[in-house]
Amino acid sequence: MNGAESLVATALAAGIDTCFANPGTTELPLVQALDAVPGMKGVLCVHETVVTGAADGYARMAGKPALTLLHLGPGFANGIANLHNARRARTPVVNLIGDHARWHRAADAPLTSDIQALAGAVSGFVRESGSAASLAEDFADVLAASISDGGQVATLIAAADHQWGEGRGQARLREARGRALVGDSAVDKARAMLVAAGAKGVLFLGGAGLTERGLKAAARIRAVTGCALFSETFFARMPRKPGLPVPTRLPYFPEMAMDALAPFGALVLAGARDPVAFFGYPGLPSRLADKVAQVETLARPEADVVPALEALADALKAPAFVAEAAVQRPGRPSGALTPLSLCQAIAACQPEDCVVMDEGLTVSAVYDAVARGVPAFDMLMLTGGAIGMGPAGATGAALAVPGRKVINLQADGSGLYTAQALWTQARQGLDVVTVICSNRRYEILRVEIARTGAAAGPIARAMTDLGGVDWVSIARGYGVPARRAETAEDLVAALDQAMATPGPQLIEAVLND
Amino acid sequence: MNGAESLVATALAAGIDTCFANPGTTELPLVQALDAVPGMKGVLCVHETVVTGAADGYARMAGKPALTLLHLGPGFANGIANLHNARRARTPVVNLIGDHARWHRAADAPLTSDIQALAGAVSGFVRESGSAASLAEDFADVLAASISDGGQVATLIAAADHQWGEGRGQARLREARGRALVGDSAVDKARAMLVAAGAKGVLFLGGAGLTERGLKAAARIRAVTGCALFSETFFARMPRKPGLPVPTRLPYFPEMAMDALAPFGALVLAGARDPVAFFGYPGLPSRLADKVAQVETLARPEADVVPALEALADALKAPAFVAEAAVQRPGRPSGALTPLSLCQAIAACQPEDCVVMDEGLTVSAVYDAVARGVPAFDMLMLTGGAIGMGPAGATGAALAVPGRKVINLQADGSGLYTAQALWTQARQGLDVVTVICSNRRYEILRVEIARTGAAAGPIARAMTDLGGVDWVSIARGYGVPARRAETAEDLVAALDQAMATPGPQLIEAVLND
Repeated sequence: MNGAESLVATALAAGIDTCFANPGTTELPLVQALDAVPGMKGVLCVHETVVTGAADGYARMAGKPALTLLHLGPGFANGIANLHNARRARTPVVNLIGDHARWHRAADAPLTSDIQALAGAVSGFVRESGSAASLAEDFADVLAASISDGGQVATLIAAADHQWGEGRGQARLREARGRALVGDSAVDKARAMLVAAGAKGVLFLGGAGLTERGLKAAARIRAVTGCALFSETFFARMPRKPGLPVPTRLPYFPEMAMDALAPFGALVLAGARDPVAFFGYPGLPSRLADKVAQVETLARPEADVVPALEALADALKAPAFVAEAAVQRPGRPSGALTPLSLCQAIAACQPEDCVVMDEGLTVSAVYDAVARGVPAFDMLMLTGGAIGMGPAGATGAALAVPGRKVINLQADGSGLYTAQALWTQARQGLDVVTVICSNRRYEILRVEIARTGAAAGPIARAMTDLGGVDWVSIARGYGVPARRAETAEDLVAALDQAMATPGPQLIEAVLND
Repeated sequence: MNGAESLVATALAAGIDTCFANPGTTELPLVQALDAVPGMKGVLCVHETVVTGAADGYARMAGKPALTLLHLGPGFANGIANLHNARRARTPVVNLIGDHARWHRAADAPLTSDIQALAGAVSGFVRESGSAASLAEDFADVLAASISDGGQVATLIAAADHQWGEGRGQARLREARGRALVGDSAVDKARAMLVAAGAKGVLFLGGAGLTERGLKAAARIRAVTGCALFSETFFARMPRKPGLPVPTRLPYFPEMAMDALAPFGALVLAGARDPVAFFGYPGLPSRLADKVAQVETLARPEADVVPALEALADALKAPAFVAEAAVQRPGRPSGALTPLSLCQAIAACQPEDCVVMDEGLTVSAVYDAVARGVPAFDMLMLTGGAIGMGPAGATGAALAVPGRKVINLQADGSGLYTAQALWTQARQGLDVVTVICSNRRYEILRVEIARTGAAAGPIARAMTDLGGVDWVSIARGYGVPARRAETAEDLVAALDQAMATPGPQLIEAVLND
């Protein structure tokens, strides 16, 4: 076995059986190893931003690390934006970057660049391969790092000569460093705070707290203390299920977020960081809980959040979880397509056990609230603000959970970043229904301009105008069947058809201005 | 004037009147400044890799720096691959990256990342803004850096509060550091070497040596010494014109490159580095001139190459430049579409004074040799191996030289990286004719696999298979009229029509297998 084959054998031994890739010459031994050591599915993506976004979506749903294969510095750089989202989501993504043979690096060949600097900017752990003999060992270290400390992006820079040189076969798998346990004192402090605060308390959930177990524990805590449940604005994944609580998502704009927190005097963080504004604005603070008297951490994002929540519920002597009363599912909307009717149409038509990848941004802001009473589903969000996760993340999610429909609720401007993901959806025959929220502009920037109090000038308007895109044509170009919906009825009909049809589908939902 | 307006005024004073952009909230004051300080054209690109590739193409043709506006670390990261190409081409590109307000950085908001590390990996010069009052001064420094030392990528990280804070108006423009002069001793050594070597000498041209003046001086040197003229494999720009010499491009694969240099005993570098292999291969050296007895540098890429070539010609007492004999332009091909007939069709149909952006890779490898005897044109190439420059570079080139047709000879796999550039071509009504060399695979990887002596396994084949793409549909989706050509006659007819029609056009040239 050469180094590359030893690495692939190690990955397979760890249960890693899917490789999202856009390889080049410096990764050829690894590509050849995928054939030589059977068991790995290779998923070609025609741009690296699709590779990394798909890896993120895959790992979020698969509950195990996702593997990428990327070509040198420029190929890796193409994938950084979606790795940034993965980093913010604490998704375990293992990147393999092929590099020049070591003896060729000094030649500064055209594709040579500072891979370490690029990888370091977005990875929690970076390793350069030491030798062909150690390549599989290096990989085992990187793999363990990816699932340590609650999950992170971990990157192995694998020199070409270490891939093709003689390896030592499958490496022993390492134990990952688990989530830090939350001590009794943190639990006790949170308990005292929430009891004292009563209805003026907030349990602020994020990350690993947003699981079914975490949400059930949160509901128990609320039942005893009367606290409110909030969540991060942009979470990695949340289960939605009739009976489970739906925490209030902290609003995006800082004024609104501060207003939402204004009634409260005590905030307990569980799996979330002290919330901060997405951007800094003149006269507004970075910390959104700036006026909340007491903010304490029950469990940091990298800590073992769920047991901490359960310990807190137990410390409060909370009774067992009681499911919330059933809520009416929204009916099928009719009339003009607006952000509200678009989200209602999704909520009305989505099948049980689907996955909703939400990168609808300004259009889908209400989806979360509208989607009450719908059958169980998992919701994924854009975590790091690097637009273009949706099409790629939906692709990866569909590969992780075959048999479940994935609905990608997708802003048009962001969707243009990774439209290439549609090709992989077609190639792999994935059950992804993409709904383009087609308002034909970067609406968030229009809103931000209005917030400055100024009128948008002609250049500012042009810089936010996305007219002229025909998503139906683009989708068909990538091999994905597509249609346009111009009314809520159209959209409902298109969704019904898409849900009943296997394979990828795209619906351009054209919003009325 | 706020900081952003002061910066824009400074750019305009320097003759920078085009800004390639994909802005976000942290760049809003700069966007608003484009309206407030009139004179700048804003060119929206719907992905940052288009922004930076267009900037590269623009600056190569405009002969002045190109300006980009990018959103934080992830937005910049999306543009790194094409900046890598610009770096290798020594193109003066000035990046403006909006960053969070300084006081907001410590909050580690979702979009926060290590912009310095990302920018440093691909820029020759990086500056962080010091204050609102100094923002225009910082910009003037960065602008001067971009045109210093023969050209480079230079980046200004502009904090949002420095953009919106009070500025000091237009800054004084700085003098750039010019190209280093080449000393008499280097000229004399090159003269002696080439005289002694005679027909066994090579003048190896690159970078700034590949201008009309440089090529004429090279022809004079050849006339006296009998040396051969070679060029870099992937040059930034070269004028092609009846009568001008066309240096032999060094072949891509190292064995072929070494074979091409085998007859020679002396190699003089003028504007080019000592040539190295694109990739390292077992048993082959990095240096392609490894077996050439003598290699000397007349002028480094960042030196003043043209005067050095002219001084060398003069030192050789070379007579004035004599135009080469006219060569027959290739006729219109017929029959099957092959790489050869495709390139012949372009050469037969391209109008005088056009620009050819060549990212045809394996398909267009013969174009250079086929395009003899055609009317004058400028040829641009992918310089850094980071695929996806073509559509973006052609976009920028068309903006730089309105009135000249730009032909983008585009490999399909690479074209998928930046298909979004078609949208900007449509929005701006640019005279770009894109010819997709549609072989429906990553052919170079197929070739590389064959070179290893192994047969491609099913995964390796799948990883290099791009079937299922309909470029005509994709182009129409972005607003660009498109048609398909399946024979050489089809292609000639489509080219004739495209050349006669203003505005963007795309032709998918489907190659026979």
